[in-house]
Amino acid sequence: MPPEVRVIGVEGMPEFKDGDDLAGAIIDAALAQGTGIESGDVLIVTQKVVSKVEGKVVKLSDVEASPLAISITEGHRRDPRHTEWVLRESKRIVRMDRGVIISETKHGFYCANAGIDASNIPGNDTLALLPDDSDASARGIRQAVKDRLGVVVAVIVSDTFGRPWRNAAADVAIGIAGMDPVHSYVGQMDSHGHEMFTTEIAVADELAAAGELVGGKVAGVPVSIIRGYDYTPMEDASIQRIIRGSDKDLFR
Amino acid sequence: MPPEVRVIGVEGMPEFKDGDDLAGAIIDAALAQGTGIESGDVLIVTQKVVSKVEGKVVKLSDVEASPLAISITEGHRRDPRHTEWVLRESKRIVRMDRGVIISETKHGFYCANAGIDASNIPGNDTLALLPDDSDASARGIRQAVKDRLGVVVAVIVSDTFGRPWRNAAADVAIGIAGMDPVHSYVGQMDSHGHEMFTTEIAVADELAAAGELVGGKVAGVPVSIIRGYDYTPMEDASIQRIIRGSDKDLFR
Repeated sequence: MPPEVRVIGVEGMPEFKDGDDLAGAIIDAALAQGTGIESGDVLIVTQKVVSKVEGKVVKLSDVEASPLAISITEGHRRDPRHTEWVLRESKRIVRMDRGVIISETKHGFYCANAGIDASNIPGNDTLALLPDDSDASARGIRQAVKDRLGVVVAVIVSDTFGRPWRNAAADVAIGIAGMDPVHSYVGQMDSHGHEMFTTEIAVADELAAAGELVGGKVAGVPVSIIRGYDYTPMEDASIQRIIRGSDKDLFR
Repeated sequence: MPPEVRVIGVEGMPEFKDGDDLAGAIIDAALAQGTGIESGDVLIVTQKVVSKVEGKVVKLSDVEASPLAISITEGHRRDPRHTEWVLRESKRIVRMDRGVIISETKHGFYCANAGIDASNIPGNDTLALLPDDSDASARGIRQAVKDRLGVVVAVIVSDTFGRPWRNAAADVAIGIAGMDPVHSYVGQMDSHGHEMFTTEIAVADELAAAGELVGGKVAGVPVSIIRGYDYTPMEDASIQRIIRGSDKDLFR
C-alpha cells in the first residue's frame, strides 16, 4: 500500500462562547459524522475557536486608541482601537508600514497584527486575540480526548499567518501537544548515502497547512483530523521549538 | 460525508537523469500502485526530480570559486564552489550572515542558498539547481497526463524552503499548472455576515506542504497525489501570483 495521509474536516460544530467545552464538542462532532477520533490522529484546531472558549474575545470599545495607534491607522480602513489592541498584544514592532504592523507578539510569534482579527466573530466591534498559551490549549484538548475516548492523539492549534516575500497567507502551528513539531533528518543518510546535515522539517506547520485544505474560512469547519501521519510522539512538546531564537534570525 | 482530502505518496519511482520522461514515470508508478491519476487530482512533484530530468544538475568542479564566494564561506562547512553556484543563481542578496545566504534567485524566489542543495543527488561533487521555469515544468507534466490518460489535473512543483522567524523548513510551491495558487475570500461573507476584506490563502503552498507529509526526504517518494481538493481551475496559472512584488514587501 502506498503511504497515505487523510485530512478529514469535522462538521457540525456549534458556535462557541467563553467557557464552552471545546474538546467535548470536537469529540461529539467527530463521533456524529462517523469518523470518530483514533489513536495516532492529529487534531488540527483553528485558533479562533480556541480563543472563543478561552474568553480571548474583546471589544473595540474596551480600549481607547492611543496617539500612536491613531497615527499608525490614519488613512487606512482599520479602526484605531483595533490597532490599539494590536499594540497591546505585541512586545516588539518588527516593521510598520502602509497600515501593516508586523510584530513579535507577547507569546513570541512573529506575525501581522499580532494575530488579531475580526472575521468569524459575532458582533461588529469584537476581535479575537490569540490564546494566552496555545500549547496549554492543545494539551487540554489532548487530555480530554484521552480521558473520554481512551485514545492518544496529537493536537495542533493553528492560525493563518502571512509570510514575507510570498503573497497570501497559510496556516501554521501556534500550539502543540503530544508530538515533536519538527522532523529532523540530521545525521540520516539520503538515498545516495550522503549524510543530510541540516534538514529539519517543520511538520507541525505542514500539518496545520494540510488541515486548512478541508477547513475553509467560510464553510465553518474549524477542526480537522489528520489520519495516517506517523508523527514522533513527544510528551513535553512545545511550539517554542519552532519559534526561532532572536539570536539566530536574520529578519528581526 | 465530511469533507476529506487524501494525500497519497507515489512509490517505486526510478532514479532520474537528464532527459528522462518524468511524467511517464509518474503515470506508470501511480498505475502500478493502484491509485492511478484521476480528474481533479493535484500532483505534487518535488523540485529535485524535476531538476534532474531537466539537466539542472551541476558539478562543483564546473566552477572556480570567486574571492567573494571564498570569503563568504570561510569558517563554514560548505565548499566555496557551492557558494559560487549560489551566487550565480541569485540576482540579489537579501541577507548574508553566519554562512547563510538569503537571496532573490534569478527566478524571483526568496530563499536560502538559491534553492541549491546536494542531498539525494548521486556523486559527491554534484548540486541540483532549481528548474529554469517551474511553471513550464508543471505544465509539461499536466499536458502529458492529459495526453496519456485523458484526465485533467493540476500540477505543483514543490521545494523545501526555510522561513524567517520559524525554525525548520516547509515545502512550498515553486511552479504550478492548471489551478489558481491562491484562494481568495475577498468580498465573501464569513459565518457572521461580515465581509472578509483581505483574506487570501496560498493554497498552492498548503498543498505542497501536505504533499511533503507522505514524501519524506529519505524514503524516496518524490511525488504525491492530492485527491479530493476542490481547487479553482486556471489555465494560465503561474507561481508569480504568489511571489510578492518587491514594492509590497517589507523584508527585502
